[in-house]
Amino acid sequence: MHSVQSRCDALWPGKGAQLSQVWRAKQLEYTWQRSLMRHYAPFSQVTEEALAYSCALLKLTLGKKEKQSLMDEYRRLALYPDVSAALGRLNTTRCAILTNGSPDMIDPLVAQSGLSFDAVLSVDELRVYKPAPEVYQLAVDRLKTPKEHIAFVSSNCWDALGAKSFGFTVYWINRAKAPVDRLGFQPDEIVDGLHEVLR
Amino acid sequence: MHSVQSRCDALWPGKGAQLSQVWRAKQLEYTWQRSLMRHYAPFSQVTEEALAYSCALLKLTLGKKEKQSLMDEYRRLALYPDVSAALGRLNTTRCAILTNGSPDMIDPLVAQSGLSFDAVLSVDELRVYKPAPEVYQLAVDRLKTPKEHIAFVSSNCWDALGAKSFGFTVYWINRAKAPVDRLGFQPDEIVDGLHEVLR
Repeated sequence: MHSVQSRCDALWPGKGAQLSQVWRAKQLEYTWQRSLMRHYAPFSQVTEEALAYSCALLKLTLGKKEKQSLMDEYRRLALYPDVSAALGRLNTTRCAILTNGSPDMIDPLVAQSGLSFDAVLSVDELRVYKPAPEVYQLAVDRLKTPKEHIAFVSSNCWDALGAKSFGFTVYWINRAKAPVDRLGFQPDEIVDGLHEVLR
Repeated sequence: MHSVQSRCDALWPGKGAQLSQVWRAKQLEYTWQRSLMRHYAPFSQVTEEALAYSCALLKLTLGKKEKQSLMDEYRRLALYPDVSAALGRLNTTRCAILTNGSPDMIDPLVAQSGLSFDAVLSVDELRVYKPAPEVYQLAVDRLKTPKEHIAFVSSNCWDALGAKSFGFTVYWINRAKAPVDRLGFQPDEIVDGLHEVLR
């Protein structure tokens, strides 16, 4: 999400790093809190609400134009350089996205990525966010594949551990060299990028 | 929790503010993630695990002595100056604590506070954290009082809004003058301290 940070910084020079950090943290918090409260809202709405909160916290004036510009950025995130080649080598393996993103966010992202998937599964139809086990079960049900045969890859450690707790084999892509979250589980493998998962 | 921050800073000079901030954020994240994963652990364990993560992230060496010293601090948090007088004026109203804290954390805190309560209710018996509605229901069940007759006070906006979503009348004590969280609800009142709730 580097492009989101750059756009934040273009709108409020010097504040981009802090704003995008608070925004991302609030966005995730709201998914967990709304799931526990049982008051689901789609990820696009949660993302906008987290942006509004973050700008209020940092005393940045968020007009319609700024909001639109930042939300647009979320719909065209750049791929990491290892992604296309790694997915290209997955010839005989089915490949799916399992995402918090609502269709109004994920569909444009997939379309502009140039990648193709066997399934794009969103929590939106379940109205609960990761790491609820129902979310990981969706992959089992839709791919008609037992969980023991599913490898799950995430760059969010808590998401990888939620999937591990559910029963997938999990790969945590730890690009930032962060510590493993302490949630009672360990990823099966910690890797630097998608190319390493393919080994 | 100023005393926690001071203790952090005494152990790692200049790092106290950052450590206590990361620690608090991770502690709450873990309560939400574990609740959604359905892998409950008591708040004392979550608090220790969040501390271990935070020290690893900030590259601070956490020995047994440091850990014990910081966890002890959590068991003797100081009261805000308005609390004792405000609760003293609640003569004819029953007053209870509804807390994420496990008994091993909350019991020593209540004992050293000099305050007395009609009930101390912990999520620990439910094995799920706030803002799940079961938690707020616990107060209704134990106090044998309909939710319409319960006023709920919290200094965490998301907790106040979880309680509002459940059906309590809620007061958010906003000492830090933070924005209201965007979760689809508003507190009934935003106040500066417990003394204001008593009006």
